[in-house]
Amino acid sequence: MVGAGQLARMSHQAAVDLDVDLLVLAASGEDPAVAAGASFRLGSPQKLADLASIAAEADVLTFDHELVAGDHLRALERRGFRVRPSAAALAVAQDKLHARTMLQHAGFPVPPFGEVRDAPDARRFAEQYGWPIVLKAPRGGYDGRGVHVVTEPSQLGHFFPAAERTASGRPPGASRGKEVWLAEAYLRIERELAVLVARREDGASAVYPVVESHQRHGICVELVQPAPIPAALAQEATRLATDLAAGIGATGICAVELFCQPDGNLIVNECALRPHNSGHATIEACVTSQFHQHLRAVLDWPLGDTSLVVPAAAMVNLIGGEQPVDPAERLAERDLGAASVHLYGKTTRPGRKIGHVTALGATTSEALGRAREAAAALIE
Amino acid sequence: MVGAGQLARMSHQAAVDLDVDLLVLAASGEDPAVAAGASFRLGSPQKLADLASIAAEADVLTFDHELVAGDHLRALERRGFRVRPSAAALAVAQDKLHARTMLQHAGFPVPPFGEVRDAPDARRFAEQYGWPIVLKAPRGGYDGRGVHVVTEPSQLGHFFPAAERTASGRPPGASRGKEVWLAEAYLRIERELAVLVARREDGASAVYPVVESHQRHGICVELVQPAPIPAALAQEATRLATDLAAGIGATGICAVELFCQPDGNLIVNECALRPHNSGHATIEACVTSQFHQHLRAVLDWPLGDTSLVVPAAAMVNLIGGEQPVDPAERLAERDLGAASVHLYGKTTRPGRKIGHVTALGATTSEALGRAREAAAALIE
Repeated sequence: MVGAGQLARMSHQAAVDLDVDLLVLAASGEDPAVAAGASFRLGSPQKLADLASIAAEADVLTFDHELVAGDHLRALERRGFRVRPSAAALAVAQDKLHARTMLQHAGFPVPPFGEVRDAPDARRFAEQYGWPIVLKAPRGGYDGRGVHVVTEPSQLGHFFPAAERTASGRPPGASRGKEVWLAEAYLRIERELAVLVARREDGASAVYPVVESHQRHGICVELVQPAPIPAALAQEATRLATDLAAGIGATGICAVELFCQPDGNLIVNECALRPHNSGHATIEACVTSQFHQHLRAVLDWPLGDTSLVVPAAAMVNLIGGEQPVDPAERLAERDLGAASVHLYGKTTRPGRKIGHVTALGATTSEALGRAREAAAALIE
Repeated sequence: MVGAGQLARMSHQAAVDLDVDLLVLAASGEDPAVAAGASFRLGSPQKLADLASIAAEADVLTFDHELVAGDHLRALERRGFRVRPSAAALAVAQDKLHARTMLQHAGFPVPPFGEVRDAPDARRFAEQYGWPIVLKAPRGGYDGRGVHVVTEPSQLGHFFPAAERTASGRPPGASRGKEVWLAEAYLRIERELAVLVARREDGASAVYPVVESHQRHGICVELVQPAPIPAALAQEATRLATDLAAGIGATGICAVELFCQPDGNLIVNECALRPHNSGHATIEACVTSQFHQHLRAVLDWPLGDTSLVVPAAAMVNLIGGEQPVDPAERLAERDLGAASVHLYGKTTRPGRKIGHVTALGATTSEALGRAREAAAALIE
């Protein structure tokens, strides 16, 4: 597994159950998966030699993040290594512009978008779709980083300094001298949904019950499962995600984030081809967790049952605040009530996900109440 | 944690969630907990220096088995190390004769028993309680080893060769020259129950729903939770186990095995002061698994919620048979249905526990059917 963050950490816990040896490519010996005892090699996902070195030790190469050079992955595939998901599929999660273009061509509903290279480009886009517009860095953004809502033309100078002749330094989220942005119409969104599809190379797939997530500043703060939405909408979201995973040839977990508009219209926001924050409640709530499932899928094993074992579940992320609270210390003092905790072994920093809590219940609101209470005990 | 078997392995998985560093004293670098990535030191639980060496690195010393010299534990306590459970409490799980005597004095219901040193002793015991009798090695037995049903006087020569002047070699289960046995009346048993109590040093405790276990040749093969018994009987079993854990001053998980006689009478069979096979279903079925709970309890943290999150659960052990089946290979081919698997990373040997499967359901029989089906797919 390329990467050794919390997704690799929880994948390692699952690998222990399955007696699978998970070898991770880690940036540091303190990475969350390494601290959890996963076997590791130190190296960079940007270096072909490092990637080739762990691929050579493994039956299959998979990922806990998508910040990997596609050229390198194609090179590994040419050498005969099994890369799951494939370099071609992973590209959809690596480049938002590529993803939008590809998904639109394939007939999936995406927000109105355009590639903009300078302020006049952006102005033309806004004139067509109205202000505000959303500018997204095509690559490298996560947890809301690299996403900007631009409400009026005067703000464009911040993103296209060369064209505007300002000296504001490096534009946020874009590489120097390569200011290509994905512009999107600013949509009215009633709720955000996520659907996790597990898919094998041979096309066999299994889909989890739809999740509704609540975001703050572009970061998922909490979710409930199943999403409290009409059955027809859940079916449509499930169909869309399953078709999308098949359409891009995903293997492993494919997490499809959807915007639900006030009229019930569903639009694909983005997708990740790996275990995903929106699937964390599956550890307690489903027969097969997304971490076990990802391993099974990329190994071409029979997929596990994705059913909920309870009526409802909720997850709340533990996100570092301005005060450096250590949830591991809080655990020694605070009652968690009817919740389970997963800490990632990371030091607290503002805005950083350092763990999560999950609670189950008869209804999503009961579960969410329990999870929020436990999260507050650990982080506030 | 002294020991690095499957209980330490699953404790390590729980420790990762809680961001607790679990250091295990392992006999080999291939032990199940070491293979799962737990930090380890190689050493023997019979050597004081090895025990002291891991105790010195830790906040608290705990156990995945009770085959530890009590003298050494008392020595560690005198040196000021925190031993949880204490040497005094652990003695109840280490020596069946001590346990029976101590529990009888404290007023707990135990089978009629006696200490027998020779064949005439055993005959007198049988004359009082009737044939057959049960002979148990006071120390070191587990999974049915060291337990023998003796149906008639002529069989006694096998256990007391010196007194009988036979040359049958070393008596099974007893050390040479030290043939002290625990004799027990052979009870009519309708079912076997187990109750897990988590207890802190300060007396705070939490108890799990009662388990019914099915044994074969003295090995637990499967269990259901909650035990399908009348509420009054479950309450009595719960009260008995809670009182026993308090009576012996247990800390951590205390698993109390109970015999239920046809008339509904409950008798204490034995207890273990560590995570226990009878608690394996708590991983999926309860808010807090026994492994998380044991760590919380021995660390003096607030105890977790022990409630079932589903109506019913069942667990089936994967026990090696005559054919060397590797369940890890089977996982690549067989569908598990609605079950979860936990493999221990052990090679298969006849009679050896190499993993377990758990299934949940609306009823214990539904859950048991699912678990049995998955176990059969992996091991038969």
